[in-house]
Order: sequence, then structure tokens, then C-alpha cells
Amino acid sequence: MHPRKRIEIVVEAVRAEAVTDLLDRLGATGWTVLPVLAGRGRQGIRRAGDPGGVDDNVVVLCIASAEIADRVMAAQAELLGARPAIVSITDCVVLRADHF
Amino acid sequence: MHPRKRIEIVVEAVRAEAVTDLLDRLGATGWTVLPVLAGRGRQGIRRAGDPGGVDDNVVVLCIASAEIADRVMAAQAELLGARPAIVSITDCVVLRADHF
Amino acid sequence: MHPRKRIEIVVEAVRAEAVTDLLDRLGATGWTVLPVLAGRGRQGIRRAGDPGGVDDNVVVLCIASAEIADRVMAAQAELLGARPAIVSITDCVVLRADHF
Repeated sequence: MHPRKRIEIVVEAVRAEAVTDLLDRLGATGWTVLPVLAGRGRQGIRRAGDPGGVDDNVVVLCIASAEIADRVMAAQAELLGARPAIVSITDCVVLRADHF
Repeated sequence: MHPRKRIEIVVEAVRAEAVTDLLDRLGATGWTVLPVLAGRGRQGIRRAGDPGGVDDNVVVLCIASAEIADRVMAAQAELLGARPAIVSITDCVVLRADHF
Repeated sequence: MHPRKRIEIVVEAVRAEAVTDLLDRLGATGWTVLPVLAGRGRQGIRRAGDPGGVDDNVVVLCIASAEIADRVMAAQAELLGARPAIVSITDCVVLRADHF
């Protein structure tokens, strides 16, 4: 088992591509985008399906090396430009080291 | 980077609001609700889209301070009143301390 | 609070049952399947809703004891036979020890 970082970013759906583009540029080997039904944050409650979908959030999940995770953190200004609601990072282990 | 707790609660969709209301009252600054396609637990297999949707589960995700997480744990009786399938808590770090 | 492992597996939707069957056989008391909107991995970008749905991924989430998690790791060959994109494991604590 190999130690990695699990990066989880909650962001508006319309800004998700800015986040995944950033992950790509920083060397992440992959990412996964999950739908969100509803959420509450600093801007109040959001629910999926609002007219225009402009309020929809998604979760961007990325398993990466500590080095990539450090780059994501160092790119804080650019990342926060996508106005994510949450950026959290958790230690994990992965089955195949060659994939990350 | 700032240490926080990632609280993840799998609960019936019809009871999710009891969980998010509890998180609100305990001082959580936000939460995110994710859809679930299917699950197996103590009550057998559940699939989204069952007639009436009564069997649908969701995942409630909340990033909070250790203090808030302790309150959630201390409110165990009330939390379990919503009959969550799973309540798990993971250590994480967040990018912006002022948001949690 | 009781220490457990949070196993998260990103896998093609059509192969998810092979993963959950394996978790069942290895003694996991439950699992949850979440939908995925899009992802990038070794095989390029995938988006939900492709014709036939053959490209759809899902996330299989399983909270289990360290013993069960070890069995999952030991069953690596069988697990990887389902060609998961990602298998990651995180330490967590759970509210009710009797459920896992």
C-alpha cells in the first residue's frame, strides 16, 4: 500500500472545469466529478435543479501524490479563483502506486 | 493548511434534513448532500428510484472543526434518531481556516 | 468512537457489481454506490450519459474493519480484475462499532 493524498473540492458546476484544468496542469493523473443534490455554505442553501443550473455544485475528487497535493496548495490563488466552497485533503493509501 | 474533521453520514433521503438541521444547530458552517445510486446495509439492498423514493439514501458531507465534530458525536442520541446507516469521521486539512 | 477503514473504489458502472460482490464475500457489512458525472484517468476523459452508458463510472464506498480492509487488499488480483480506476483507503472513526 502506498501513501497518497485524497483531494476533495466542492465547487460550482460551472467552475469545475477550471479546477480540473488546474489539476491537469499540476500533474494529477486523474480526477472524478460527483454530482451534488444540495448544500449549505456561506452563500446560503443551494439545491440542484435551480433554473439554469447556475447554483449547482459538484465534488471534484483527486487522488494524488503528496508532491502534486503540495502543488495544488501552492496554487492556492488560482484554485481559489474558481471560488471553491471547500478544499480538503486527507491522507490515504492506494493499491497501485503506478497510477498516481 | 488547517486541521479539520470530515464528517460523512449515509442516511435515508427523507431523513437527511433532520441531519442537516442538527449540523446547523451544532454550529457547522456548511454541508453538502450527494446522491446515492444503491447500497447494502443491515436492511438489505437499496436502489435509487424505488417507487416513492422512500428507500433512497444520500450522503451528507460536512467539513467542521474538531469542536463541532465533538458536538456531533455528543449529540449521538439525536443523530441516531435520524437512523443513519453510517456516521464516519476522517481527519483532513483545509485550505482556508476562516470558512469552518 | 471506533477506528475503521473507509474504502473508496472508482470503477466502471458495469463492473461495480463485481466489486460489491467481492466486498460481500470478504465480509463487509455494507457498501454505498455513488454516481459519477465525469472523470479523467488513464483512458482519457469519461462523461456520464455516453451512448450505452458503457463509459459511466461509479464510486463504491465501504466502511469496514481493518481486518476486512486487509482482506480487500489481499484480494488485490480479484479486485483489479474489475479494473477499478482507483482503490484508496482512509482511516476513519465510526459512531457505532456494532455496525461494521
